[in-house]
Amino acid sequence: MVLISLMTDFGLIDGFVGVMKGVIWGIAPQVHIADLTHLVPPQDIRAAALILNRSAPYFPDGTIHVVVVDPGVGTPRRPIAARLGSQYFVGPDNGVFTLVLERAEHQDAPIEIVHLDKPQYWLAEVSNVFHGRDIFSPVAAALANGMPLSTLGSPISDPVRLSIPQPRFTSTGLQGEIAHIDHFGNIIANVRDEHLRDKDYLTVRLGSEEIHGMVRTFGERSPGELIALIGSTGDLVVAVVNGDAAQQLGARIGDPIEIIF
Amino acid sequence: MVLISLMTDFGLIDGFVGVMKGVIWGIAPQVHIADLTHLVPPQDIRAAALILNRSAPYFPDGTIHVVVVDPGVGTPRRPIAARLGSQYFVGPDNGVFTLVLERAEHQDAPIEIVHLDKPQYWLAEVSNVFHGRDIFSPVAAALANGMPLSTLGSPISDPVRLSIPQPRFTSTGLQGEIAHIDHFGNIIANVRDEHLRDKDYLTVRLGSEEIHGMVRTFGERSPGELIALIGSTGDLVVAVVNGDAAQQLGARIGDPIEIIF
Amino acid sequence: MVLISLMTDFGLIDGFVGVMKGVIWGIAPQVHIADLTHLVPPQDIRAAALILNRSAPYFPDGTIHVVVVDPGVGTPRRPIAARLGSQYFVGPDNGVFTLVLERAEHQDAPIEIVHLDKPQYWLAEVSNVFHGRDIFSPVAAALANGMPLSTLGSPISDPVRLSIPQPRFTSTGLQGEIAHIDHFGNIIANVRDEHLRDKDYLTVRLGSEEIHGMVRTFGERSPGELIALIGSTGDLVVAVVNGDAAQQLGARIGDPIEIIF
Repeated sequence: MVLISLMTDFGLIDGFVGVMKGVIWGIAPQVHIADLTHLVPPQDIRAAALILNRSAPYFPDGTIHVVVVDPGVGTPRRPIAARLGSQYFVGPDNGVFTLVLERAEHQDAPIEIVHLDKPQYWLAEVSNVFHGRDIFSPVAAALANGMPLSTLGSPISDPVRLSIPQPRFTSTGLQGEIAHIDHFGNIIANVRDEHLRDKDYLTVRLGSEEIHGMVRTFGERSPGELIALIGSTGDLVVAVVNGDAAQQLGARIGDPIEIIF
Repeated sequence: MVLISLMTDFGLIDGFVGVMKGVIWGIAPQVHIADLTHLVPPQDIRAAALILNRSAPYFPDGTIHVVVVDPGVGTPRRPIAARLGSQYFVGPDNGVFTLVLERAEHQDAPIEIVHLDKPQYWLAEVSNVFHGRDIFSPVAAALANGMPLSTLGSPISDPVRLSIPQPRFTSTGLQGEIAHIDHFGNIIANVRDEHLRDKDYLTVRLGSEEIHGMVRTFGERSPGELIALIGSTGDLVVAVVNGDAAQQLGARIGDPIEIIF
Repeated sequence: MVLISLMTDFGLIDGFVGVMKGVIWGIAPQVHIADLTHLVPPQDIRAAALILNRSAPYFPDGTIHVVVVDPGVGTPRRPIAARLGSQYFVGPDNGVFTLVLERAEHQDAPIEIVHLDKPQYWLAEVSNVFHGRDIFSPVAAALANGMPLSTLGSPISDPVRLSIPQPRFTSTGLQGEIAHIDHFGNIIANVRDEHLRDKDYLTVRLGSEEIHGMVRTFGERSPGELIALIGSTGDLVVAVVNGDAAQQLGARIGDPIEIIF
């Protein structure tokens, strides 16, 4: 049973995602479809890249991830599909696959990327504004049916890459920033577990707040306390126990986070 | 593999849609279920009719569309099911199927409509306020299991029809209105591609704004620019590139849109 | 075909629920997955217990309900799984299963509860903050694959129970409270059909409003009227026809509702 995941910035009001499922199941009725999220902030390619990168490893081999955050739809930006290690990725060539591609490169995994330039595998009519329905869904369904990548497009080796801010080491520790704020208002830094030395003794500084030492989980402190911990995918998280840290601190994506060893 | 699509105004908080899936899969475990949307504005039959009409053509033959926007639940309004061309439709007889019915009529497609009056195909207990769970889900599952329409209800030929505003031709062009505002804040008019003559030279007037000529897609203009284009299902759309046109213009459903040829 | 239902307070933005589906389908590709809701108010165990209790009866025998509203994740609170009658339940031992357990007890249904203490059925790496992904999803998938409860954990008989407020009889009638406010703004009391005597003659008092007598359904009154009726799962509901009662009355969960016979 092949699994297709869908991530878009289409929202949940208009039926656009349902239509993509209609197209996919019309071509490949045997697949499962998992919604990853459809509430990526409009046109936010970086947010989509981060969510995809931390989610994909938990999907089985052979999963086909369709990502449609596509401000350039209908312009000459290329539609692409890729095999990165044991999974497939389908979407616009705008950098949304940067992080999963870099991980595959880092792991020396097999990599194959094609420019989707074979309209015979798309819907018969292709609009200028909804390639998620007209190109990416039918291509994902064709992949699910066993069509090889090389049939669906021509090989390329120069996919667009995003420049995603990395933390930098300073004389006292690390200078990072807020990469994401989740549904609970937890603040996720672009700093990872492996960047941090002695977690019992480090200090996290965010705006005018300082957090001394880290905890393992939320329940170690009382509701309302500000804590730092390692999140479920290895990122540094600043949170308020049973509260909304981002709202309480007025934190926004891109704000600096400093770690002092 | 039969596909059932679900559209409601139930929202995503209360578990009502999950319960409908429990009922459907309890009777017809082999089906796929695609959510179309559950965020139809409460009791907004016209919005549901529009979303259904632009979405249904992308679903495969045999799909069963269940639509539960049902302010008259529990009153004498009839529960109905219909075959329109190659697809099925199940829901309240309140006009929500007007547009898909008119298209089937226009295409001379086979049409069969029944009043769901056979309680033996419903849940054993039927509440006065949740026919989505108690009538429409079990009937959709029975259809998915191959039960003919004629077994599920008695034929009718007078389904309720909504009066949906059409644009009218004027001495200078067309007078239409805003039919829908999507998740991105794009403004969708009740004006279609085939109403428009020479798109390079027409002017779209909305409130105090005038847009001269149309573009093919968003990326042809710079972020922040106001544009007019043909949307993914052939409707005239007014949008702000990478922005929220409805918010920026203070536009609301029903506001007039004028096209000057 | 086994059915797994998912309920969490994870929201729909971050991809957390999609990841749980990836884990489940990686282990048990044959199952259907139904989202119950992922918009439980953060950490609101009581709300989750209420939604689960009114939804579970509509799911088929053998359904596995996974509930992850888990403020104590990573602390010594136990992960548990239970068979209650003909269905299974998987989640944290924090009282979220209180109501379904009490119903099973009341019905003398078979009950089996285990402490999930066999890490060989979890993901290889278990984070301190996302047991929904690392423990509950793989355990639900193992159950779906036919693994007996007794293999997945050690029997317990002392699950945590919530104290959920019950209405009390007074000299003039009943004193209850608001248990839930739904997507439409309908106000659901902790008072049930079987608590009420003569519905034609009773009065419902909420804040400064009094409603005399009950109706069977919304459409019996005009848009804008305040009504009382029995909801789809037997609860007393206060609503405004085609309106938002909670907003209009400024009502909040826990506010008192009085019934005068």
